[in-house]
Amino acid sequence: MPAPVMLLSELEEGQEADFFALLSEKQELTTRDGKPYFRVLFRDSQREVGLPIWADSPLANSCRNEWAVGDFFKLRAKVLQTNFGPQLEIRRIRPVAETDAKDGFDPMMCLPVSRFDPEQMYAELAATAKEQIQDEPLRQLVLDIYDTNRVALLALPAARRNHHACVGGFLEHTLNVTRTCVHLAEKYTDLYPDMLPPLDKDLIIAGAMLHDIGKLRELRTSAAGTEYSAAGELIGHILQGRDIIREMAAGREIDAEKLLRLEHVIVAHQRLPEWGSPKPPMTPEAMIVHYADDLDAKLNMVVAILAEDKSDGVVTSRRNPMSQSFYRGGV
Amino acid sequence: MPAPVMLLSELEEGQEADFFALLSEKQELTTRDGKPYFRVLFRDSQREVGLPIWADSPLANSCRNEWAVGDFFKLRAKVLQTNFGPQLEIRRIRPVAETDAKDGFDPMMCLPVSRFDPEQMYAELAATAKEQIQDEPLRQLVLDIYDTNRVALLALPAARRNHHACVGGFLEHTLNVTRTCVHLAEKYTDLYPDMLPPLDKDLIIAGAMLHDIGKLRELRTSAAGTEYSAAGELIGHILQGRDIIREMAAGREIDAEKLLRLEHVIVAHQRLPEWGSPKPPMTPEAMIVHYADDLDAKLNMVVAILAEDKSDGVVTSRRNPMSQSFYRGGV
Amino acid sequence: MPAPVMLLSELEEGQEADFFALLSEKQELTTRDGKPYFRVLFRDSQREVGLPIWADSPLANSCRNEWAVGDFFKLRAKVLQTNFGPQLEIRRIRPVAETDAKDGFDPMMCLPVSRFDPEQMYAELAATAKEQIQDEPLRQLVLDIYDTNRVALLALPAARRNHHACVGGFLEHTLNVTRTCVHLAEKYTDLYPDMLPPLDKDLIIAGAMLHDIGKLRELRTSAAGTEYSAAGELIGHILQGRDIIREMAAGREIDAEKLLRLEHVIVAHQRLPEWGSPKPPMTPEAMIVHYADDLDAKLNMVVAILAEDKSDGVVTSRRNPMSQSFYRGGV
Amino acid sequence: MPAPVMLLSELEEGQEADFFALLSEKQELTTRDGKPYFRVLFRDSQREVGLPIWADSPLANSCRNEWAVGDFFKLRAKVLQTNFGPQLEIRRIRPVAETDAKDGFDPMMCLPVSRFDPEQMYAELAATAKEQIQDEPLRQLVLDIYDTNRVALLALPAARRNHHACVGGFLEHTLNVTRTCVHLAEKYTDLYPDMLPPLDKDLIIAGAMLHDIGKLRELRTSAAGTEYSAAGELIGHILQGRDIIREMAAGREIDAEKLLRLEHVIVAHQRLPEWGSPKPPMTPEAMIVHYADDLDAKLNMVVAILAEDKSDGVVTSRRNPMSQSFYRGGV
Amino acid sequence: MPAPVMLLSELEEGQEADFFALLSEKQELTTRDGKPYFRVLFRDSQREVGLPIWADSPLANSCRNEWAVGDFFKLRAKVLQTNFGPQLEIRRIRPVAETDAKDGFDPMMCLPVSRFDPEQMYAELAATAKEQIQDEPLRQLVLDIYDTNRVALLALPAARRNHHACVGGFLEHTLNVTRTCVHLAEKYTDLYPDMLPPLDKDLIIAGAMLHDIGKLRELRTSAAGTEYSAAGELIGHILQGRDIIREMAAGREIDAEKLLRLEHVIVAHQRLPEWGSPKPPMTPEAMIVHYADDLDAKLNMVVAILAEDKSDGVVTSRRNPMSQSFYRGGV
Amino acid sequence: MPAPVMLLSELEEGQEADFFALLSEKQELTTRDGKPYFRVLFRDSQREVGLPIWADSPLANSCRNEWAVGDFFKLRAKVLQTNFGPQLEIRRIRPVAETDAKDGFDPMMCLPVSRFDPEQMYAELAATAKEQIQDEPLRQLVLDIYDTNRVALLALPAARRNHHACVGGFLEHTLNVTRTCVHLAEKYTDLYPDMLPPLDKDLIIAGAMLHDIGKLRELRTSAAGTEYSAAGELIGHILQGRDIIREMAAGREIDAEKLLRLEHVIVAHQRLPEWGSPKPPMTPEAMIVHYADDLDAKLNMVVAILAEDKSDGVVTSRRNPMSQSFYRGGV
Repeated sequence: MPAPVMLLSELEEGQEADFFALLSEKQELTTRDGKPYFRVLFRDSQREVGLPIWADSPLANSCRNEWAVGDFFKLRAKVLQTNFGPQLEIRRIRPVAETDAKDGFDPMMCLPVSRFDPEQMYAELAATAKEQIQDEPLRQLVLDIYDTNRVALLALPAARRNHHACVGGFLEHTLNVTRTCVHLAEKYTDLYPDMLPPLDKDLIIAGAMLHDIGKLRELRTSAAGTEYSAAGELIGHILQGRDIIREMAAGREIDAEKLLRLEHVIVAHQRLPEWGSPKPPMTPEAMIVHYADDLDAKLNMVVAILAEDKSDGVVTSRRNPMSQSFYRGGV
Repeated sequence: MPAPVMLLSELEEGQEADFFALLSEKQELTTRDGKPYFRVLFRDSQREVGLPIWADSPLANSCRNEWAVGDFFKLRAKVLQTNFGPQLEIRRIRPVAETDAKDGFDPMMCLPVSRFDPEQMYAELAATAKEQIQDEPLRQLVLDIYDTNRVALLALPAARRNHHACVGGFLEHTLNVTRTCVHLAEKYTDLYPDMLPPLDKDLIIAGAMLHDIGKLRELRTSAAGTEYSAAGELIGHILQGRDIIREMAAGREIDAEKLLRLEHVIVAHQRLPEWGSPKPPMTPEAMIVHYADDLDAKLNMVVAILAEDKSDGVVTSRRNPMSQSFYRGGV
Repeated sequence: MPAPVMLLSELEEGQEADFFALLSEKQELTTRDGKPYFRVLFRDSQREVGLPIWADSPLANSCRNEWAVGDFFKLRAKVLQTNFGPQLEIRRIRPVAETDAKDGFDPMMCLPVSRFDPEQMYAELAATAKEQIQDEPLRQLVLDIYDTNRVALLALPAARRNHHACVGGFLEHTLNVTRTCVHLAEKYTDLYPDMLPPLDKDLIIAGAMLHDIGKLRELRTSAAGTEYSAAGELIGHILQGRDIIREMAAGREIDAEKLLRLEHVIVAHQRLPEWGSPKPPMTPEAMIVHYADDLDAKLNMVVAILAEDKSDGVVTSRRNPMSQSFYRGGV
Repeated sequence: MPAPVMLLSELEEGQEADFFALLSEKQELTTRDGKPYFRVLFRDSQREVGLPIWADSPLANSCRNEWAVGDFFKLRAKVLQTNFGPQLEIRRIRPVAETDAKDGFDPMMCLPVSRFDPEQMYAELAATAKEQIQDEPLRQLVLDIYDTNRVALLALPAARRNHHACVGGFLEHTLNVTRTCVHLAEKYTDLYPDMLPPLDKDLIIAGAMLHDIGKLRELRTSAAGTEYSAAGELIGHILQGRDIIREMAAGREIDAEKLLRLEHVIVAHQRLPEWGSPKPPMTPEAMIVHYADDLDAKLNMVVAILAEDKSDGVVTSRRNPMSQSFYRGGV
Repeated sequence: MPAPVMLLSELEEGQEADFFALLSEKQELTTRDGKPYFRVLFRDSQREVGLPIWADSPLANSCRNEWAVGDFFKLRAKVLQTNFGPQLEIRRIRPVAETDAKDGFDPMMCLPVSRFDPEQMYAELAATAKEQIQDEPLRQLVLDIYDTNRVALLALPAARRNHHACVGGFLEHTLNVTRTCVHLAEKYTDLYPDMLPPLDKDLIIAGAMLHDIGKLRELRTSAAGTEYSAAGELIGHILQGRDIIREMAAGREIDAEKLLRLEHVIVAHQRLPEWGSPKPPMTPEAMIVHYADDLDAKLNMVVAILAEDKSDGVVTSRRNPMSQSFYRGGV
Repeated sequence: MPAPVMLLSELEEGQEADFFALLSEKQELTTRDGKPYFRVLFRDSQREVGLPIWADSPLANSCRNEWAVGDFFKLRAKVLQTNFGPQLEIRRIRPVAETDAKDGFDPMMCLPVSRFDPEQMYAELAATAKEQIQDEPLRQLVLDIYDTNRVALLALPAARRNHHACVGGFLEHTLNVTRTCVHLAEKYTDLYPDMLPPLDKDLIIAGAMLHDIGKLRELRTSAAGTEYSAAGELIGHILQGRDIIREMAAGREIDAEKLLRLEHVIVAHQRLPEWGSPKPPMTPEAMIVHYADDLDAKLNMVVAILAEDKSDGVVTSRRNPMSQSFYRGGV
């Protein structure tokens, strides 16, 4: 009877089991005393464990010639504590086969994922649109864009690196931004009842939900990671997001000015030209979406920097995507 | 029996009444056909009405030699509609006397004021501190700073120009920022339960309430308007606000690291060195306060720009404190 | 028998004739000795002549109450030399009527126009596309965009102000850029025969012809002048030009990469983000179009600055759209 | 009878022959398994081939102690295909001797060279000056500067790195710029016949030919490569180029304003102060030369980046002298 | 017997006398009640007094048609106190004649001058060179440049506007810089005895004395004021100063490296490219001269701003050549 | 009888002696042929000498497991010349014990120190304050700040890296700045006798002495080196220096405006916001201190760069704290 198929992230120390994993790194290195080896890392969505493959290992040949980063494997192995931290001890390893699907293999199970359930986040976003966007054609436009791209959105990261770079990251970031925007839209609608033109809550919610929708075309995500598409490189998600909206809006009965304002929210959401926005926010709605977006992205980066920085002292190193130090605590 | 003392802003067209007003502007001008006159404006907290004083007016001499911008007057006058808009027709005018206080004169009644009641805003802020700041010494620090400066805070504007430049403006802006910060502190505390060091909601609330506290020393407000103090010019409200906190904290049992983090929120709240912050936000708390503050100030500026811009076309002129156009509507 | 209808720009000194003209300026002024008058300017496409309308003129009332800048008139008048330069002496003046069209009235005859014939420039551009663009679908795309917008293109200026701001200005600027691009495409194709991917002359020509095509939507031109449309303000001609291309390309058999490269030429043609390009030129073709475009626009500005600057000395003032001095000559 | 002296770049695989070569690189390295060796590269003008020199090689001692980068050698060797690409197998090697000149040795034969014949480029430039520069003293000035520096100009690169960094590179770049300038000078002279001062084609051609002439003094070129001279570092080619012109012009009958305008073309040709130009282009002639120069230099860099970039994906890495990605193709 | 010829700056109130003066300003204005007049200002080196010339004045015609700014006049007049400050009451006025020289007329007597005697400043600079510059050829170079340009240097301002813009201003600024440099050269030579290359005091002194020498060619000074020459505009005093040094050094026995270092001091003395220096200071000597120069120029500007600013409050306005406020005093 | 305790920096080649030293570096490395070793460096205040500790050395174990950078040791060793420069040959080595103090051990003897005696520099600064600061309360304030922090100031470096990063570095830098300021204060007081407000020499001297006083709190110095304190990171020495002054001034009879001006000198002494000054110098005194400070710091950096740069050629590499090349000499 075969060992049960478990998850790498469930394995306890010393427990031997079968599991599926993604080869996420493979580097050819040399020890201090000149011994060559491959350092390889296997991961599922929650955990990443490595091991060295020495030149005299029975796996050495396969490792050198057959294993490629981004490939999926079925392993029988145990996780052992060593002086170099936890390491895998591999009994068997073979590439994933089609028939593994029936044992529960799914490439997504091996990618880093949001701590939140994509389905639930998607549902909350859809519900927000339904409840909060009063203008019927605008609401329908937002919902149709989501519905049409449902499968891709469930998996999409928010960025290739830097912030929310995980399965479901797009939805996590978008949901955060949308929640903040609901709060701000209500606050400022109350605060400025006489504004002309009046603050348009619908636009703020729609803008929050669609501000990064161009990532659908800018990024190309596969098991091996996320890359920019050619159009992502040459055109960029800001313009591509506006394309998605215009294509979906074509032929609908949507108010022309409202659509233009929505396009502007997308175009201006990065605020600065050097961050990719050809126009600065010229409406309060665009301004609110920008702030909610920028704060959520930056805060996610800070959380990651504080979690990952290895330097000593009261502050982190400056070598991180924000090029500044952050405070760790201590006086 | 004297005419009842009313408010300028209550007067209906053609109604003659006594009221108190501030001389808010006095300019010596010439008509197109070479006739010299003074253009003067009188205001109370809600309304500003002007009139020309011609060289042959019985008021001409007093106007030229005695009236100064910032002086308060008791007038008996009516407001009339003219081709040049509403104008005052003055029957009597004399400087305010000490005894006018018993008829209800108060300099504050003549200054532009927040649409919100300063007492209520103050109360909401104090209540927020009491309910939301868990750390006792920190909570007490915040409350004592507010109590000690209660009278000044009730009247303080948020800035000399640009945003919330009215009586109560400090409280209005601070309350907006604090409300947003309560929302964000709760959201992100939930979102990142494992952050190290943990996100400190206390600090965010205290930072929101105190971020601009240095305006107490930077600005010098009188009936004639708001100016920078000498120390405001040479040192600036960011450093002065930190002084207020350090002075109040001296000798208290407040955790040294917590106090340092609070000082940092103040020091970093403008984010960029060219905006006056010698350090960028190096903690998530400082980052959150910065975003909430910046959005509220900018949005208030946009509201004012849209309300005041006189140019034609779908967008405003760029000659405004944000040096860019804003969209008015229209396709 | 009526006086023959002539052109204002044909009138010799002292000659009285009927002509059509646009009221291009109307200002209420006062002489040094306090006399009020209106200064008005009438223009046709080549010449602009003014006169003062004194308060006691029989035209004074119409001028004040009825004449608006941008209106067209039929005048009977002569041009006289005065101490203040040439001035009109008006015998009769009335607004243009519909029936004037049969006497040859056409609003275009009153606007500043390119020194070059729009029809000929259009024809040269179309011929260039036909001869130089080898790829059939790309060539057809360019030609169809031109054909579809033929009437608008013949009149379109290249910009609201700054450079080529006249009827036909778009074609004049585009033709200059296209001619330079033909030269450069040939030179550099010869120079780098081994480049990979090979330099694509088709793309350079198509990019040159379409780089500013979004001005069709960004600008709104009428007899009263050129303004930005709402979408021009909020989105901008770079994105709008790409829209025109994508809309026309939809459903055609055009190579996807070629279309993407063409879109990139449009998106990148201003090079710097602060000039409106969200991406820098990432292909040699985009780089060549940028240089040819930028040089032609800047040179046209310099020519205008040298022609119009009124300051003394060997160099012009810095108060011009390029914010620097230019050399007039002299040692 | 000795083996015939061939060129390294002519050798076919396996063919043994004598040839002259420059030692262009020598690095002390260690293999993965800790074995030390020298990696050396030999080159002629068209081809660069390397080999490892192991510690136990008979060449090891000479290599370590005697061979220096920039030295010339006569080798008898063959080129063999290996797993690491083509490598030399050396039979004999000795430093070049004076008498090798009679066998055709010339240091220039070992340096990277322009694909174009320096003599022909020089001739075309001289002919252009003769035909296109109408003003006799100016034409003679340009020609005399070229004649006086003929030998150096034939070998000069256009830059130490970045663009046209090869023997003849100066002439190649200058010829490109001059050809573009001839085209632009003719186009814009036609286009703006009424410009004041008139566009001066002579100046444009002379400026194009001389814009980088200061490289003669800024760069110090030897077989070992190109370095900056001390004056190149402390003063720079822009000022040094103007020196060359002023020294040659001293005592000639050249119009003072024309000379000043020519000096300005040199001084302003980099346009931006941070690129080394103390003054921006203040004449149309300086502007035209700048654009033609900048485009040619940048395009040459892009060609090299596309040819040399080793990264994967649709775009190149950003680690190149232009600090941005370029598109390789693919969708 | 003629009235004695006095100086305008010596006249006491009500005293009538003959004096020479420069017409420094002439503006055609209108009073508030529409009366046209000319406002004219006359000055000598210490004092500037104006008067209105009304249309009915006997001087009106000459003023309108004959008087030009920059002309010199002999006046018989008195200075009277009026409500508009001191004004001239003119009895007689005629243009200066050649024969006035014998009565002491000298155009220089009418220009603003340094508070220090140019001859003495010149002498101190020459003495400093003689005493402090050890290297004989370098010392002689500096002295010869001064001697050759003695007359011009005595009158030269340091700048057209901004700092030391008066007769003798060049010498005043240069002397300040040189004195500071002597101090710094001595201090830092003592401080860093082991520096390699050793700090060269000679170079610092020579650099201080010559750093602005190009102003001789950049500026064109006449009684009517200081303007930039054409070469000043197109080339600039940094390059022109280096020219003067190179021309004077040509054919001398001056150490090549020393001369290069001196040229570099001149080239780098503004430090930043946007301030006109194509190279930053790359030697300690250039750095020292830059700091001494920059401080002296800036301080002179601050002194003038504090003396001339007319705004109220504890700080000056920002509308001054340094675009920032300065503190006047007060708390 | 024990070997006499000497200084490492006194040892002659081959001389064996006992001495105290700090372990300033320890790196685990591998030779080219794969042999692992530790490279360690020992230093006293004047000299740093290293040696390799091979795996088979009797010291290998202690080195790997016990020695830490920043520890002090007593060694018996000799310095020998080797092919790799001077190296230590260690006979005995043990950690410093408490009783070593009686043999003269003092941690300071092992740190890099200023070439000048801290006590003498301190004395000169105190004397300068006494002689030059006329205002009694200001003078006493400065002296009391120095006295209170005497011990720390004697050891404090001027910066963690970059300039004067050695024991006594604060005093060395401050003394240089103060001397320059005395010179400049005298010069400019003489030069501008009429300035309003008058130039305040007291303030310049006090500002010079206190400009960096916040380093006392920003830096944390130990034998193992200098680090930033938490408050140094989050607040910075500019604000901390002002704190020290305000705390010491509290309750004293010091003129309020004078204190404010002094605080401003500290706040503004870095001049640019991106260098940490929230306000630019708004008084001449602040401007003078800034220039004297900046020059001294930059010059110290240049001296160090020239001394330490290892690259070839006439100029240094750009990889240094000033990110530019410096000239070494040579033509």
